[in-house]
Amino acid sequence: MSDNPLKLPAAGALRWREVVETPAVLIDLDVVERNIRRCQDQCDRLGVAIRPHIKTHKLPLLAHAQLAAGAIGITAQKIGEAEVMANEGIDDILITFNIVGERKLERLRRLAERCRLSVVADSASVIEGLARAFANASSEIDVLVECDTGMHRCGVLTPEEALNLARLISDSPGLRFAGVMTYPAPGQGNAACEWLDHAARLIREAGIETRTVSSGGTPDLYAMKRHTSLSEYRPGSYIYNDRSLVNAGACGVEDCALTVLTTVISAPADGRAIVDAGTKVLTSDLFGMSGYGMVLERPDCAVISLNEEHGRIEYAGEQASVVGELLRIVPNHACVVSNMVDSVHLVRGDYYVRAEPVAARGRIT
Amino acid sequence: MSDNPLKLPAAGALRWREVVETPAVLIDLDVVERNIRRCQDQCDRLGVAIRPHIKTHKLPLLAHAQLAAGAIGITAQKIGEAEVMANEGIDDILITFNIVGERKLERLRRLAERCRLSVVADSASVIEGLARAFANASSEIDVLVECDTGMHRCGVLTPEEALNLARLISDSPGLRFAGVMTYPAPGQGNAACEWLDHAARLIREAGIETRTVSSGGTPDLYAMKRHTSLSEYRPGSYIYNDRSLVNAGACGVEDCALTVLTTVISAPADGRAIVDAGTKVLTSDLFGMSGYGMVLERPDCAVISLNEEHGRIEYAGEQASVVGELLRIVPNHACVVSNMVDSVHLVRGDYYVRAEPVAARGRIT
Repeated sequence: MSDNPLKLPAAGALRWREVVETPAVLIDLDVVERNIRRCQDQCDRLGVAIRPHIKTHKLPLLAHAQLAAGAIGITAQKIGEAEVMANEGIDDILITFNIVGERKLERLRRLAERCRLSVVADSASVIEGLARAFANASSEIDVLVECDTGMHRCGVLTPEEALNLARLISDSPGLRFAGVMTYPAPGQGNAACEWLDHAARLIREAGIETRTVSSGGTPDLYAMKRHTSLSEYRPGSYIYNDRSLVNAGACGVEDCALTVLTTVISAPADGRAIVDAGTKVLTSDLFGMSGYGMVLERPDCAVISLNEEHGRIEYAGEQASVVGELLRIVPNHACVVSNMVDSVHLVRGDYYVRAEPVAARGRIT
Repeated sequence: MSDNPLKLPAAGALRWREVVETPAVLIDLDVVERNIRRCQDQCDRLGVAIRPHIKTHKLPLLAHAQLAAGAIGITAQKIGEAEVMANEGIDDILITFNIVGERKLERLRRLAERCRLSVVADSASVIEGLARAFANASSEIDVLVECDTGMHRCGVLTPEEALNLARLISDSPGLRFAGVMTYPAPGQGNAACEWLDHAARLIREAGIETRTVSSGGTPDLYAMKRHTSLSEYRPGSYIYNDRSLVNAGACGVEDCALTVLTTVISAPADGRAIVDAGTKVLTSDLFGMSGYGMVLERPDCAVISLNEEHGRIEYAGEQASVVGELLRIVPNHACVVSNMVDSVHLVRGDYYVRAEPVAARGRIT
């Protein structure tokens, strides 16, 4: 067996402290590898396939590592993300977003000609658009019904509605009904699966093949029980983790692969330091927490407020910050942080690997 | 006199509804031109020069328009932004950020060789770094002392400290003391100028020439009085405006040049619609308001929550949203929205102009 089964690059001889200008997003590949294995082990225990959501990292390199570890394919949120991943040889992609509008449907049709593609739908209107686009396509497209199991975002509201849409998909030339999926409200992962169990049973009883029953979300990943019909799990954040997941008990601080490296640029008053990371790298995501991140080197510090390019840090300890000091911040929400930068810096522990372009960043359509 | 003094491009024959895929950031150049003129008129009335902050738009095209309207130079927050603007022929740039670290100081020194550059400092430590970098440089660099007039971010805490740093800058070979500057806390623009008046008086009484006294901020721009010593104003958001500025009374909805065009992708329950704009385009910035934007076409709507790629809209009116409906959202904070996208779409009213790359986006170092 290979010593490097995930085929991620090794560190060089330089330390990242000697190389990286701040602010910068660091990705520790040692932690990434551990997180990928831990998630794969958990999904193996649950008896479900894993189809990781690449919205978190947007890096073909890490999508390939997830596939090498055993994932059956990937999940993307936007056609643009899926196009980038297909360009890099990823072959099996689920887009968990209603595709609406003629231009997008045309892009979807073209993309389906060069990779195994599936999408979701939660209304007759979305299904009719897909059916129009694929009626004369060279291959059918798999369509899953999105179910609202408590998130109150997209999704049909009842298992009976899921059955109705499954029938509509099955009856539409060019479309192939593939199953049901949900993104559960955090903390409701197991209840969501019972909802999906119910919907899948109804659809199967109606004589419609239901290959895939898919849930997702890192917050509940390690608290999931085995469920009768669940066949697939689509976690995203688990590969990096973040402060919100530490707070939710889903991981420890040492499992956070993504940190924001920042420099103290001003220490103008007692107990206050200003760093060069603001909302344009950490974002304003609070996720119900107070403060904008956790300072690894200074547990006595709180990131109390951000402006666009400034972060304000208050510390209770006696040791003052000095201008030029480097700090690493574990952000509240990793997915939105890697989306802010054109490149992330891959590291292993103290050592630098290389800069990696965030290839699917900004692919919002 | 030219009919098109700001030299911004004209609209074509197509309507943007026929061209743009969502989500998309639209910039209405008719409104931009009006906003630029209004601000220039106000600064003329105040008797101050205008040095607009390009962090809002990050577009060389609009920086040139601001200069054509009468701006004396531009303001940037990061060396990377200044480098992009210098590459596009902008000649007079103030970077309102402490430059810390050897790599950044070297970039600053190189940049100063190809444009008229000034920077700020709020501590002896920052000044010493600048002095090391410029001691043997081919030209001196202008340095302003940053003052904390109530924002509690960077800046010296008292006018006396400002004098001390002015002395240190004046005594440093390679550096030239240029004046004092602040970013005032919103609503405290006039009080901030009194603070700067005091500091400038102290420094001049010490026999040190103080050419520039500079304040900024759109929130207070149109409420500013004339001040004895104020010589320069650095507003940023005025060029686009946003919901926070409408709420603050600084502009009307019709003055908002930047909107986010979004499509309803799901209308799963009464009174709820889901659009394809989430935090990855609107951001999580709340600025103390409730909701994430103002829906132009549907004043009965509230953007009540966002996920990364989903926006949840609730409406009180009787007319339901339908899948495929296009909506424009005025975001809470325009500066962070234009920073999310690789390109914005220039429009004039209903007509499309062209896509414009956000050239200085992601230049966070």
